[in-house]
Amino acid sequence: MSSSKNVVIGLAGLGTVGSGLVQLLKDNAEEIEQRTGKKIFVKYVAVRNTNTKRDIPEGAKLIDNPLIMVDDPEVQVVVELMGGLGMADILIRQALEKGKSVVTANKALLAEKGEELFALAEEKNLSLAYEASVAGAIPVVQTLKDSLAGNKINTIFGILNGTSNYILSEMSAHGTEFGAALKTAQDLGFAEADPTLDIDGFDAAHKLKLLIRLAWGVHYPYEKLPVQGIRDMSAMDIAFARSLGYSIKLLGQASRVHEEIEAGVSPVLIPEKAMLARVDGAFNAIHINGNAVGSLFLHGLGAGSLPTASAVLGDIMSLMKDIYDSTGYVMEKLPLAPMANPDKTEAPWYLRLMVHDTVGVLRDIAGIFAKHSISIAQVIQKKKQEDGVPLVFMTHETSVRAMKDALHEIEATKILNCRPVAFRVLELV
Amino acid sequence: MSSSKNVVIGLAGLGTVGSGLVQLLKDNAEEIEQRTGKKIFVKYVAVRNTNTKRDIPEGAKLIDNPLIMVDDPEVQVVVELMGGLGMADILIRQALEKGKSVVTANKALLAEKGEELFALAEEKNLSLAYEASVAGAIPVVQTLKDSLAGNKINTIFGILNGTSNYILSEMSAHGTEFGAALKTAQDLGFAEADPTLDIDGFDAAHKLKLLIRLAWGVHYPYEKLPVQGIRDMSAMDIAFARSLGYSIKLLGQASRVHEEIEAGVSPVLIPEKAMLARVDGAFNAIHINGNAVGSLFLHGLGAGSLPTASAVLGDIMSLMKDIYDSTGYVMEKLPLAPMANPDKTEAPWYLRLMVHDTVGVLRDIAGIFAKHSISIAQVIQKKKQEDGVPLVFMTHETSVRAMKDALHEIEATKILNCRPVAFRVLELV
Repeated sequence: MSSSKNVVIGLAGLGTVGSGLVQLLKDNAEEIEQRTGKKIFVKYVAVRNTNTKRDIPEGAKLIDNPLIMVDDPEVQVVVELMGGLGMADILIRQALEKGKSVVTANKALLAEKGEELFALAEEKNLSLAYEASVAGAIPVVQTLKDSLAGNKINTIFGILNGTSNYILSEMSAHGTEFGAALKTAQDLGFAEADPTLDIDGFDAAHKLKLLIRLAWGVHYPYEKLPVQGIRDMSAMDIAFARSLGYSIKLLGQASRVHEEIEAGVSPVLIPEKAMLARVDGAFNAIHINGNAVGSLFLHGLGAGSLPTASAVLGDIMSLMKDIYDSTGYVMEKLPLAPMANPDKTEAPWYLRLMVHDTVGVLRDIAGIFAKHSISIAQVIQKKKQEDGVPLVFMTHETSVRAMKDALHEIEATKILNCRPVAFRVLELV
Repeated sequence: MSSSKNVVIGLAGLGTVGSGLVQLLKDNAEEIEQRTGKKIFVKYVAVRNTNTKRDIPEGAKLIDNPLIMVDDPEVQVVVELMGGLGMADILIRQALEKGKSVVTANKALLAEKGEELFALAEEKNLSLAYEASVAGAIPVVQTLKDSLAGNKINTIFGILNGTSNYILSEMSAHGTEFGAALKTAQDLGFAEADPTLDIDGFDAAHKLKLLIRLAWGVHYPYEKLPVQGIRDMSAMDIAFARSLGYSIKLLGQASRVHEEIEAGVSPVLIPEKAMLARVDGAFNAIHINGNAVGSLFLHGLGAGSLPTASAVLGDIMSLMKDIYDSTGYVMEKLPLAPMANPDKTEAPWYLRLMVHDTVGVLRDIAGIFAKHSISIAQVIQKKKQEDGVPLVFMTHETSVRAMKDALHEIEATKILNCRPVAFRVLELV
């Protein structure tokens, strides 16, 4: 139900991203209200076919003409997730004309026909928010617009298309040729039946055009961007590049050189040790260099239902602040954290014990570990050093309490030459 | 001079970050005005000793009592860069009381005594902005507050202290012991004469406290955080860890586990292939996992004059938007980009030519390269394959024009079996 405590939105499009948004509005409703003090009420969901059964938010009306939401004065924000250059364009234009802010993930529309829409939003003093349009869940729009606002940006390099990156990662990992890697990507849902937009570099170019706009406040016509895709990529070149110490990535690049913008999308060799070269699979990443910030690197999921919806929802919530003038958490005083007992924290452990070089030491230590239910994953005994024999253990998940107790007991046996060293292990992917 | 087109600020503190801010306000004045339509006017600069000669902005008054700026109704934003828990606390409190928003980089103050200040800001409906307090130039405050606002955050891991990370990187790269690495860090200005705050983990804990606040909207008392530093770190353990495939990093960690917050700062083993393990030197990095965004990784400079000032300036500019209600670029229509001629772009190149297996081919190709002033860095000739002999070249910087002309000429000689493959090389550090 709508009330003054709600922000009322109209949602156009219930595909991958639209469904993700509906799910997030449900799953994270508590967090949204905690941060903003308001609920988000979806009054309309526009889809092409209203006869199909859909999972839509409680109280929402299913409509097949998205322009209905524009004519409803109660709707404050129009969320355009239909895609395409036709109806989406009309919807956004009319929404702005009627005083509604817009959130969109439509990179193609903004890159190819966006300048008029941006001008209209500025003229009406409304927001046209599009974080989800560039690199999915990576907050690069906000970073360039706000966090780095006081910088002269020098360069932006980005892996901006997850499909191409997945294909190149596949080719690199398994030595497969382009056609086979594309087929795998299609079978797994990482590439569309018609993959042109992704593999020929146009999708990356859409995003690059928007990044240039954000970084330098200029309009670089999309159709003027030099674009080369990965359709002709050969496994042989990936292998040669690797033998020279490089990975091949499809990169969007833009630099300011002598007051000119040098920009384009193309496959590029990147040194294997650089973070950009280590961006694998469906991930995106962006490397920004500015005269104040220096080098900044952002890495995250560039597509997918929930990651993209995360960016859409972030934009909606930023608008809610503008609409209601509240910032951050609405509570004046935050509640005390429910602090976990640190002793109960579980992790694998690295242990180093410097022991006397006598018979039975390992047996005694292992016995104490067993008593405290500490399971050992690896043991390394190194050769004797000045202050004893180093015994290194890697354990399975063990609580801080169990580890403390076991070490205490080991120390009491007087078989150690120095205090034990114990660090937790973080098993990241 | 102040006018309605200015935002008037008072700057307290002219140390590393304060001086960086003064430099940015000068160097990037054009960008600031282009984005906001306003100038930033510094009316006061408060320093301890007003007799020393200082580089301060034109028109600013040098004062030794920072509270003077609080009593001037013209000052809209107080920028606190003095540090410490004493006068900074008083200044921020009084500024908020008198209706001025505050920007600060004072992580110690916010972590140890911040709850009252945050409550006061919320009560007065003012901003207390602190992007520069956590991980320097990395926009993690804004990311958690806005971009990821619609997420349930699961975990945050961060390398939050550049000094410790520099020391650990040194120990790892050269096998040096802690004492020697600390001395190097001090000699190079990466560590202070009294390094306690950094190497004993307290600085990282200050930042972790603020991250927990941002991620979960709860107050985790700073003094309750379990903290272990790197003072006792031994080169031997770094070597053992490496032999097991891990790097040791000082990590701030926080997770929501069964509705409890599990948090702390300690040295941790991280798999070498993980991006967090590859954060070297004075860099910081933060890894966030949320239920919508998935995995997000942010990497940048965690300290230093300009990087930290970049974050301070970003906060000031965000406030300017609030104060004047303008968003993004103020122009309705952005100017056309000064597009560089793509043919003039220079880069090193990777070239693969499939040539006939005949005498003189390499000589002919090398001759054409020389004619177009293309300098070769590496040549690899591979053994004959089905469609010819692969000749791989890595060139020095060459323009697209020269490369196109040379390849055109090579193709005309009919010594190639297939079209040449040419990709640019990006020499990232």
